[in-house]
Amino acid sequence: MAKEFVVGVDVGGQTSKIGVVDIHGDVLAQSVIRSDTYGSDAGAFIAALAEAILACISQADKTPDDIRGIGVGAPNGNYYTGEVAFAPNLAWAAHGSVQLAGLLSEACGGIPVSLTNDANAAAVGEMTYGVAKGMKDFIMITLGTGVGSGIVVGGQVLYGSDGFAGELGHTTAVRHNGRLCGCGKTGCLEAYCSAIGIARTAREWLEGSDEPSKLRDLDTITSKDIYDAARAGDAFALKVFDYTGKLLGASLADFIAFSAPEAIVLFGGLARAKEFLAGPIEESMNANVLPLWKGKVKLLFSSLKESDAAILGASALAWEL
Amino acid sequence: MAKEFVVGVDVGGQTSKIGVVDIHGDVLAQSVIRSDTYGSDAGAFIAALAEAILACISQADKTPDDIRGIGVGAPNGNYYTGEVAFAPNLAWAAHGSVQLAGLLSEACGGIPVSLTNDANAAAVGEMTYGVAKGMKDFIMITLGTGVGSGIVVGGQVLYGSDGFAGELGHTTAVRHNGRLCGCGKTGCLEAYCSAIGIARTAREWLEGSDEPSKLRDLDTITSKDIYDAARAGDAFALKVFDYTGKLLGASLADFIAFSAPEAIVLFGGLARAKEFLAGPIEESMNANVLPLWKGKVKLLFSSLKESDAAILGASALAWEL
Repeated sequence: MAKEFVVGVDVGGQTSKIGVVDIHGDVLAQSVIRSDTYGSDAGAFIAALAEAILACISQADKTPDDIRGIGVGAPNGNYYTGEVAFAPNLAWAAHGSVQLAGLLSEACGGIPVSLTNDANAAAVGEMTYGVAKGMKDFIMITLGTGVGSGIVVGGQVLYGSDGFAGELGHTTAVRHNGRLCGCGKTGCLEAYCSAIGIARTAREWLEGSDEPSKLRDLDTITSKDIYDAARAGDAFALKVFDYTGKLLGASLADFIAFSAPEAIVLFGGLARAKEFLAGPIEESMNANVLPLWKGKVKLLFSSLKESDAAILGASALAWEL
Repeated sequence: MAKEFVVGVDVGGQTSKIGVVDIHGDVLAQSVIRSDTYGSDAGAFIAALAEAILACISQADKTPDDIRGIGVGAPNGNYYTGEVAFAPNLAWAAHGSVQLAGLLSEACGGIPVSLTNDANAAAVGEMTYGVAKGMKDFIMITLGTGVGSGIVVGGQVLYGSDGFAGELGHTTAVRHNGRLCGCGKTGCLEAYCSAIGIARTAREWLEGSDEPSKLRDLDTITSKDIYDAARAGDAFALKVFDYTGKLLGASLADFIAFSAPEAIVLFGGLARAKEFLAGPIEESMNANVLPLWKGKVKLLFSSLKESDAAILGASALAWEL
């Protein structure tokens, strides 16, 4: 009998989401396990994940024999080697590399496993089911806790010579006196245009000025707080979004010069602030590209539910198995 | 009989070089015509080019029937459309687009013509005959009058959605108060790390300081003058190279984050100053990449003769015809 179902797994720092998916992209069953309760014990995490995957397959009224493969998206996941390596947000893979694809396949009774990083999986999801459907050349930028990217060239994810291509969050957005990024470099796009980055901007600006803002009353400021303040008309919060969008737009212009994509797709928590980001991003992107691209490259915001895009993207990988 | 020969054409602002090439990459006959004596008359240039190509084929003791195809590298040449469009250095294609591939094929009695931009052609030449032989993922940067680039991904030139991918000379190297570039933008890599860019740096620095340098005695300063001064131990000239190399290295780090190449290959007039550029480029490139790439991406300097690389690269295109 044909194996007409796949499993998509989105491994995140706090939770890992699992879905059994059919050929139409319909999710037949879903479950979630924690990723952060195993310390540095990769084996324990993988055993728990395999157990949850097999349970999810049963829950969908299928057996492992019905499953063509398991596609996994994980931070720092390498498509070529099947390893997750030096992923700061995964304690069990923070200080070395874990052969996630091989070990998970073994733990699931030999179902083949394909692995890629989470942003690449989201790009595949977007290309298969989302706003990039039918596109062959686009760049996916994930604006979450960090900034990730998945680059699609000629309908294929760009993996490069070592499987790690598409780390656009760690290109330099501010070359002079740039902020220290979690990766150890300074001035990275991620240090400014992630959920954490925009909150840093707000805090730094508040400390350096007397400008009035609702945000002053808060002990800690999150990107959600800035969004809520902007919606309430807070001029300071709007300025923070304007700065963040313009910085991102200038970086996007450089990315366009690289691969001449048809579209840039924005995805992730911060991308939900489309109403405040789209204007400044587009203005700055078009001001910084060569004349031949002015007004030509679409700026799109993902319309897939975040968890779905990641599961669906990871599952789309499994169809190739 | 099999068509076992191809023609490679390198169209430049001043001259166009033609070579008849066999399957081993040996150039059997060569010639050169001027590109700059036809004003805006594209038809006259194409007629002269076709005549020279047919003469070169005869000179190699071949007939048009022996020729599989003609590969052409030209500034702003588009692989998809066969057009040269808005090329500032070609008067006959400066203000519009010219269907060079179609018209040249017609003028050569129907020999098929494939066109790409000059930096892409050089990348193909380097991959087929030069230091990138056997590589599947590398980035070619041409440091000439301007800064061009050819990006190879999985053994294929990256053309993008519109055929114009790989304009890395127009990514932003200096975001704050950057120099005006010929393209109309500010802060472009080309405005700093080209032959013209490095000469601008020297002039600006001399005007802004009293620092002693042999270069002060010159009416006009070229990149060659800076090179000669550096060789003679001029500390100012060495500082200019150091700045230029570090700026380029920081940009290369961002390019690495995009496509994770095995190597960066530098090519063109300014790349001949390897002794003064290699050190600062490598230092800055490795300081600005993610830890996973530190010391891993090779920095190579082309060893092909410039005219050969362009002709051979263009000719390599023709084998695909």
